[in-house]
Amino acid sequence: MRRAFDLSLYLVTDPRQTAARGLVETVRLAVAGGATIVQLRDPDAKGRVLAEQARALLAVLRPLGIPLLINDRVDIAVAVDADGVHLGQSDMAPADARALLGPERILGLSVGAPEELAASDLSGVDYVGTGPVKATGTKTDAGAAIGIEGLAALRRAIALPMVGIGGIDLAITPAVIAAGADGVAVVSAICASADPKAAAEALLQAVRAARP
Amino acid sequence: MRRAFDLSLYLVTDPRQTAARGLVETVRLAVAGGATIVQLRDPDAKGRVLAEQARALLAVLRPLGIPLLINDRVDIAVAVDADGVHLGQSDMAPADARALLGPERILGLSVGAPEELAASDLSGVDYVGTGPVKATGTKTDAGAAIGIEGLAALRRAIALPMVGIGGIDLAITPAVIAAGADGVAVVSAICASADPKAAAEALLQAVRAARP
Repeated sequence: MRRAFDLSLYLVTDPRQTAARGLVETVRLAVAGGATIVQLRDPDAKGRVLAEQARALLAVLRPLGIPLLINDRVDIAVAVDADGVHLGQSDMAPADARALLGPERILGLSVGAPEELAASDLSGVDYVGTGPVKATGTKTDAGAAIGIEGLAALRRAIALPMVGIGGIDLAITPAVIAAGADGVAVVSAICASADPKAAAEALLQAVRAARP
Repeated sequence: MRRAFDLSLYLVTDPRQTAARGLVETVRLAVAGGATIVQLRDPDAKGRVLAEQARALLAVLRPLGIPLLINDRVDIAVAVDADGVHLGQSDMAPADARALLGPERILGLSVGAPEELAASDLSGVDYVGTGPVKATGTKTDAGAAIGIEGLAALRRAIALPMVGIGGIDLAITPAVIAAGADGVAVVSAICASADPKAAAEALLQAVRAARP
């Protein structure tokens, strides 16, 4: 039985954007404002530091019932007893990850284009992250922007819960939800905000208001 | 019960140095020449590629009874059913890795200086890699060279099986073994050799000849 999760407002952390305020404090403010799920993403961090960061975030998030996912590193997720993992297309195969994660943890997969969907084995995957919706400076190795039309096309092709990601701000959030996403995943809209709590509140309100 | 391993001639792969001949072919020649254990090391590789490389190496090594260890990535090691993992000081804590690896897989840890030994929890660790014995251009983030004297000092302080690493070539191999190492770990001495099989033969012969 999978752990419950809510994609409405999905925070992805970025080490540079959270550096000034601190990772844990940024996440604390984001969930105080309404972030419903958090992904720890720091592709340059070594395992020891990543595990320490994950444990620090779990101390904040678990009492609130907010799931913590780890980007890429299935071993770190299991070692710290995080709630799951988010994989990119070049990370470990989802089926391999599922075997390590067991039946309860959450597994997400990035799917950015119809070709990637065709090449993906979605068995064992719980949700997909689709994008980049717009071009973004945060993740420089992301593919070309797929736009709202691209997201809507993937929505028609994929039955799993879906969160839009990539360049998402308050202005585009209603269109992302109207295109069929269950939520929005943001990095800079919260991490680089002067007021992460207020930013999260506004984003969550926009997601809820845009739902049919 | 741990899987058996022999540290006498420990090959660490390097993606640049094996590129021309190919990773699998380089390893095949090295074990034909006498390499007794192999570590797949490619810190820049993403998980999908690393798993593919590991499976390709296992197809060569398992029939020969030569263990394959994976650098850093415990998840990849378990996913592909490799024989174990080698961790650096900034990788996941050895106790966390042991919990994921189970009781049979081999766990190695790099210990490069007395301070690192003091900070290390060696429970669950099966062998240590000590060095760099000499300065090396292969691993640019390695610490300062500890020399034969440094290796001998760690040998006196650590009861576990020990392999010297870092800048090891045929010339220095007798001194490394005389200082108490159970074997030599090499990268360029095999991977960058024009004849990896002959290089491995000569190194293994030097290790055996140097033993008391």
